[in-house]
Amino acid sequence: MSGEYPLVEPTGSLLLAWQVSRESILLVGAGPVASSRLYHLVCAQPRKIYVVAPDDDNVDPEMRYRMTADPDAGAGGNGGVEIEWIKRKYSEHDHADLQLVLQDGQGGGGGGLGMVLVATDDATLSTRICAECRRLRIPVNVADVPPECDFYFGSVLRRGALSVMVSTNGKGPRIAARLRRRIEKSIPDGAGEAIARVGDLRAALRRVEPGKGNDAIAQRMQWMIRVSDQWSIEQLARMDPDMRHRVLQGWATDSAPSYYDVAPARINSLAALGLRAGRAVGLLGPGGSCPVDRDPDGNVRRCPFVLGMTGFVTGLVTASVAVAAWHRYSSMSRR
Amino acid sequence: MSGEYPLVEPTGSLLLAWQVSRESILLVGAGPVASSRLYHLVCAQPRKIYVVAPDDDNVDPEMRYRMTADPDAGAGGNGGVEIEWIKRKYSEHDHADLQLVLQDGQGGGGGGLGMVLVATDDATLSTRICAECRRLRIPVNVADVPPECDFYFGSVLRRGALSVMVSTNGKGPRIAARLRRRIEKSIPDGAGEAIARVGDLRAALRRVEPGKGNDAIAQRMQWMIRVSDQWSIEQLARMDPDMRHRVLQGWATDSAPSYYDVAPARINSLAALGLRAGRAVGLLGPGGSCPVDRDPDGNVRRCPFVLGMTGFVTGLVTASVAVAAWHRYSSMSRR
Repeated sequence: MSGEYPLVEPTGSLLLAWQVSRESILLVGAGPVASSRLYHLVCAQPRKIYVVAPDDDNVDPEMRYRMTADPDAGAGGNGGVEIEWIKRKYSEHDHADLQLVLQDGQGGGGGGLGMVLVATDDATLSTRICAECRRLRIPVNVADVPPECDFYFGSVLRRGALSVMVSTNGKGPRIAARLRRRIEKSIPDGAGEAIARVGDLRAALRRVEPGKGNDAIAQRMQWMIRVSDQWSIEQLARMDPDMRHRVLQGWATDSAPSYYDVAPARINSLAALGLRAGRAVGLLGPGGSCPVDRDPDGNVRRCPFVLGMTGFVTGLVTASVAVAAWHRYSSMSRR
Repeated sequence: MSGEYPLVEPTGSLLLAWQVSRESILLVGAGPVASSRLYHLVCAQPRKIYVVAPDDDNVDPEMRYRMTADPDAGAGGNGGVEIEWIKRKYSEHDHADLQLVLQDGQGGGGGGLGMVLVATDDATLSTRICAECRRLRIPVNVADVPPECDFYFGSVLRRGALSVMVSTNGKGPRIAARLRRRIEKSIPDGAGEAIARVGDLRAALRRVEPGKGNDAIAQRMQWMIRVSDQWSIEQLARMDPDMRHRVLQGWATDSAPSYYDVAPARINSLAALGLRAGRAVGLLGPGGSCPVDRDPDGNVRRCPFVLGMTGFVTGLVTASVAVAAWHRYSSMSRR
């Protein structure tokens, strides 16, 4: 029976998208490593971040900037996340700071203290915090000390709601960063936009068909898949409110409009004309898109207008060459 | 001060590589979703996996295969991970199964129960398990029920120790899978191999220079960076024990041999000759590699032999054309 199923790749860790919106997070330290952690954290949008570190010259400038940013600075500052800077060294003897965050989380009705990140040069302190966290069953990460980490941070790239993590499970952080840069180039422009636009379409569909039963949910999901699978990521990113409105009209007639059915530009109207003609004579697939020129994701790869024009020009040229050749041949034989 | 620092991208979740080697994991359910979870789990190599599900026709065939695989099947089976299948419906009233795993973890000296994954059709059961896990501070994921998830699974690709997760934080799972397939194509063949070979080199270096002080660690790290940064990922993947031995000889002389310095083939010897000549006349950078033709990762992009030969042939052609033109000009002016 082996061979039928995917082989096990022993990566050694489980990649997860940890949900922190209802949690507070405690970060101990304010050096360059803590600063990089803080950036990860503000992108993750937790309920609140507590930072425990003395206010001295060792505070990383970017970290200081984010901790003291104007709440209105938004994405340019702390991303709208509340950060409380407790300006002293972590008191390892009573763990008062840990207790403070724990109590705040429980009192506020949130999910409590989600995790503790330690990034200080004080190895003794780190070990004590780690032990206390494990006693309290709070996930902990001590930078650069693998045995004191319940989780690692990989190399991450972000585009809006999209995030990609490259992990080598600590075996090659530098190769991970190199691969992350290669991957960055392979992600189409507007991937983050495309995800947002699919979210908009899903929300609009729920307004048109608000049913909450399992059948309604399944129907909506099926239609969303039919529509989005025939749009490329670049096309999804270009779906504006007008186009969304026209796509939604397909829901009533149980059809899945393609990009070329709803795009406004003249060239796309020509393409849509081609699509409709193709459908009418039965050349095109049931989704209404070209049955041949699809990428491995099942998306239409080329604009049908371009394909058609290419065919036309190739035909013109072939014919002209044939005519010229025949002309020459007949004029030669006449000689 | 804004603008200096990266903008916050509100992805809404924290991507983590969760360490499970000392933990047990409880999986409730054995349908297709549970089966996909189980594959993630065996790749993560936890201490032990407990599965609670009745032994009936609803068990997914791949899941049944992995749960009952011969331990010697290795990567083709359960990847060497111990799986205990508790063949009954989860008893939500006493949570006996959860208690069993908790006690086993504590008794065995391991890290205890790391997380609970629920993938059943029984929504009432799922909600009860989730509540009990939150009471016990055990991270939990109930498939398809976001409010009952402390973490999500993204779309993951794996190559040996390398793993890449694409997450849209639940906003576009289908787009995540499409991007994962695009990313798959951008990852060089042998990326997993390259990570393994860098690990081998690091281990060999520790045998040559076993110092445990901070200085020794920093020196080793610096040299590893100097070496690996001038090897492409494809070259690293080809580092065999002979080449590794020759690379290590660079440690004593504080030099960082490039691929072309240590590769065995004749063509590479020619390339190395070119590199050495370049270094001798001071044309090449201190690392010994071309100062010009580097990709954004700082790696040598082309084989110097090819570059040189291209230059040579271009020169030959330029000269020939010039000579021919001059010849023609002078013969014309002689007429």
